Amino acid sequence: MSEIISSLKNSKIKFLRSLYRKKYRRRNNKFILEGTRIIIDALESKVDIDQVFYSAEFLSRQEDKELLVQLREVTEVIEITDSLLNEIADTTTPQGIIAIANQPQFELEDFLAGDNNLFLIIDQIQDPGNLGTILRTADGAGVDGVFLMKGTVDVYNLKTIRATMGSLFRVPVFELDSPNDLTEILQIQDLQIVVADIEAESYYYELDYNQPTALVIGNEGAGAQTETLKLADKKVKIPLSQGIDSLNAAIASGVIMYEVVRQRKNKN
Amino acid sequence: MSEIISSLKNSKIKFLRSLYRKKYRRRNNKFILEGTRIIIDALESKVDIDQVFYSAEFLSRQEDKELLVQLREVTEVIEITDSLLNEIADTTTPQGIIAIANQPQFELEDFLAGDNNLFLIIDQIQDPGNLGTILRTADGAGVDGVFLMKGTVDVYNLKTIRATMGSLFRVPVFELDSPNDLTEILQIQDLQIVVADIEAESYYYELDYNQPTALVIGNEGAGAQTETLKLADKKVKIPLSQGIDSLNAAIASGVIMYEVVRQRKNKN
Repeated sequence: MSEIISSLKNSKIKFLRSLYRKKYRRRNNKFILEGTRIIIDALESKVDIDQVFYSAEFLSRQEDKELLVQLREVTEVIEITDSLLNEIADTTTPQGIIAIANQPQFELEDFLAGDNNLFLIIDQIQDPGNLGTILRTADGAGVDGVFLMKGTVDVYNLKTIRATMGSLFRVPVFELDSPNDLTEILQIQDLQIVVADIEAESYYYELDYNQPTALVIGNEGAGAQTETLKLADKKVKIPLSQGIDSLNAAIASGVIMYEVVRQRKNKN
Repeated sequence: MSEIISSLKNSKIKFLRSLYRKKYRRRNNKFILEGTRIIIDALESKVDIDQVFYSAEFLSRQEDKELLVQLREVTEVIEITDSLLNEIADTTTPQGIIAIANQPQFELEDFLAGDNNLFLIIDQIQDPGNLGTILRTADGAGVDGVFLMKGTVDVYNLKTIRATMGSLFRVPVFELDSPNDLTEILQIQDLQIVVADIEAESYYYELDYNQPTALVIGNEGAGAQTETLKLADKKVKIPLSQGIDSLNAAIASGVIMYEVVRQRKNKN
């Protein structure tokens, strides 16, 4: 029987802990999952799980023992002490389980295949919960892919992952380094780029979305960067009552995404 | 010159601290505001501010000195020490200012005046941030009033207030003690009651909202209570891609609220 790891100095534990920082997640193309629910979601979505760390607490629940059997079939499973697991974990109730998974890698060409695509371009959203909720909504609305512009909060942040409720594993996400990358994409595929802007003349529901479309979702306070805005060819506004000057960024994007869905369903 | 309060035993401080608990907020019909931004919003919306506590930290910013002058004109302003203020405050950066305000009281009759009303019925939403975001969206969409069913998180929770971004002061909110209260309202006004339900046959955009309408927003996980559901006469669903079984509650309500707005704007 193998030994139960109890020390922060163990090399596997050191590596695991490094992945709580964005820099190391990016360098290794890996990310962390905490808790039973999200790990089940990851398994169902065939996420490439690399290693699983669990503690005695996890084994106390019968249904979780079965999960462990399933995990052993696909990956390396390592027992560590309860106190070590709780020290490592970010959530207050990690439920005795933490996994390391490989970030899915998408090719831009696969991304741009298909017709009547709907993409999101997320430009500097800062709140991890907002980003997660936007991805969840994008999944619901059947968005074909999400481009993340530089300066956006890390999609593999644990709070983001939690807020996606498993949608992270279903929506293809592609990180762009600069607005130039976006220009390149536009050379490959003819997309109408739509941005929500309080100064726009048209309401969002006056636009025709029965054509390949990318919606730009800007920063919660400042909106999209100037360079991204330059690429947008349609500006739309959401009607707002007097006294209020903006909606939450996730709500605004949800309202527009579902107008696209509505128009396309009505057309079929 | 009056003394600067430094003790938790001071009776005004004791009362202030009690209002961090829902029970005492309810008993006294008061609530707490922390930080400059939300207090400015409250002033602009003519919220009845009862008392303001500030500390030296607050006075270090020139623009905040001017705010204090304005506050003195409408309410009692009390100086306390920085350390006491930070001990009392819930937020990590209360910016040296905490206010007590009176909860606005609405009469059901005023609430039900007007035609082509749009109401929300919030049934056991648990997450304070979700509730705040729903109120912010309701404000944007021009909702005439929000009914809160028993079991919903307190609307005067500090996290809720923050998430409303000032909309709490613009949207009339009415607390209902039981589904019977809702029945009474329905006897006063003829409303179509619409609930989002994954089992519904119609999509939310297939319904005609050009009539007095109330949207039911149920609990994040369990949906609306059975008693509330019984009162609903229209069930609608939001289309969802395969693999995902729900949207965030604030997003779902935002999507439907704005479909109402869209239909009514198109009609005008």
